[in-house]
Amino acid sequence: MSKFSWPIRVYHEDVDIMKIVYYANYLRFYERARTEHLRAVGFDQSDLMKNSGVMFVVKTVMLDYQQPARLNNMLLVTSETTSFRRSSFLFEQKIYRDNEQGICLNKATVTIVCVDTVSLKPCPIPEVILQKLNVEEEKF
Amino acid sequence: MSKFSWPIRVYHEDVDIMKIVYYANYLRFYERARTEHLRAVGFDQSDLMKNSGVMFVVKTVMLDYQQPARLNNMLLVTSETTSFRRSSFLFEQKIYRDNEQGICLNKATVTIVCVDTVSLKPCPIPEVILQKLNVEEEKF
Amino acid sequence: MSKFSWPIRVYHEDVDIMKIVYYANYLRFYERARTEHLRAVGFDQSDLMKNSGVMFVVKTVMLDYQQPARLNNMLLVTSETTSFRRSSFLFEQKIYRDNEQGICLNKATVTIVCVDTVSLKPCPIPEVILQKLNVEEEKF
Amino acid sequence: MSKFSWPIRVYHEDVDIMKIVYYANYLRFYERARTEHLRAVGFDQSDLMKNSGVMFVVKTVMLDYQQPARLNNMLLVTSETTSFRRSSFLFEQKIYRDNEQGICLNKATVTIVCVDTVSLKPCPIPEVILQKLNVEEEKF
Repeated sequence: MSKFSWPIRVYHEDVDIMKIVYYANYLRFYERARTEHLRAVGFDQSDLMKNSGVMFVVKTVMLDYQQPARLNNMLLVTSETTSFRRSSFLFEQKIYRDNEQGICLNKATVTIVCVDTVSLKPCPIPEVILQKLNVEEEKF
Repeated sequence: MSKFSWPIRVYHEDVDIMKIVYYANYLRFYERARTEHLRAVGFDQSDLMKNSGVMFVVKTVMLDYQQPARLNNMLLVTSETTSFRRSSFLFEQKIYRDNEQGICLNKATVTIVCVDTVSLKPCPIPEVILQKLNVEEEKF
Repeated sequence: MSKFSWPIRVYHEDVDIMKIVYYANYLRFYERARTEHLRAVGFDQSDLMKNSGVMFVVKTVMLDYQQPARLNNMLLVTSETTSFRRSSFLFEQKIYRDNEQGICLNKATVTIVCVDTVSLKPCPIPEVILQKLNVEEEKF
Repeated sequence: MSKFSWPIRVYHEDVDIMKIVYYANYLRFYERARTEHLRAVGFDQSDLMKNSGVMFVVKTVMLDYQQPARLNNMLLVTSETTSFRRSSFLFEQKIYRDNEQGICLNKATVTIVCVDTVSLKPCPIPEVILQKLNVEEEKF
């Protein structure tokens, strides 16, 4: 419902002996895109924790390695929030070479759970967050 | 069918601002355990590439973050090969705090595909590998 | 003699439990800036290896941690080539918060040696590289 | 004055396209050895912060890359505390292939400063720490 994309360059620190991105490092790229996505919609996780007493944690990740990203590649990483429920939602993410017209190299689905900062138990996603992520009311 | 476990200590390099392991770093831990698993059964990926003309690539990963691993925790990471098909198989992996009697913190299912080193297309898993992973013939 | 700067954002992957950049990760930032510096002057290390039979390796690094870089900080990383000798030169590098008018957080001096790709022994820096790094002839 | 060594295996996560350890990752190895060194002498940084109101920060690092550590290498990383002053001391560290009879691959000198946890200004190293690191009184 809220969609975003972020360019990322592949450096030496990211690749393995095959000159392709090491399989764990896609998760670093995906988090950079999610962070910039949330920054772009005016979301600040520190403020959220202080003001609402909740925080977001990653519960599951599914990764599909379709084609390798290579040293010096310019990538476009997308981030889309979807499937909102009472205390969880998904980020659907993709990595393209060059841009969204380029080849899709990798796909991820990341489940985020909203938890109470003290009890660490799931709790409702604050309304202010839902609004920033452009979630329409009838989805609930 | 072949099962293995490997102890790993959590260091400063591994954790985030919450003093828990950063979500991408579980994939580093899982690969260490798979590497030691394959080493223990006498498997050498360099030899494999030279002698058989094939190599193993990660195709998909599913991660379930159940409880966080914390700074200084001693972990036990398991690795089990399963679901062998013509050119692919799975590693089912878990991370326990302390040992297998400890709490399970994280689960992963990793799909491995055997590909030709030149064409990078899927090809049959060499018989010698199947034997080392103790795969029973009737499973095919 | 050739000077360059590159902006870098600090993400969760970069910081430790104090919310400051983990001490090894400054080296990742410094290499990104050097890579972009060399890209900007038209230098390609792959071409260099193929065409000249030489490559550049890091021989020493001196790091001075003056102030910590923090989560979400926008940094400016500088890269300046200096002290050219027959087969080695230095990158003098700094990290500022925000921009070069900002506070200097970290300093590094990186010694680079030009080595033969086969023997791995030091060899003269190719003239084409010296020209791209704007080294004046009288310096030799 | 207090000396320690710790074995470390090189995995895929650690190496670059040359199959040698990426230059920043030696700092991860050095910190693992320092952490295990301090653990071995009964030092706990969390306790230190709570009980003494001080903590240790890295002020400078000098790295000398002599020979590359390679994928699958078994390394021995040493850690020796030395040059104690009122509020700082050094770790002298080396990385050997296999063991201390093996070839020395890398050397580091790490300056540690003891700072107040609130003001972050240098302050005297607590006596209890000096004792654990076997520092002789006459050295001061």
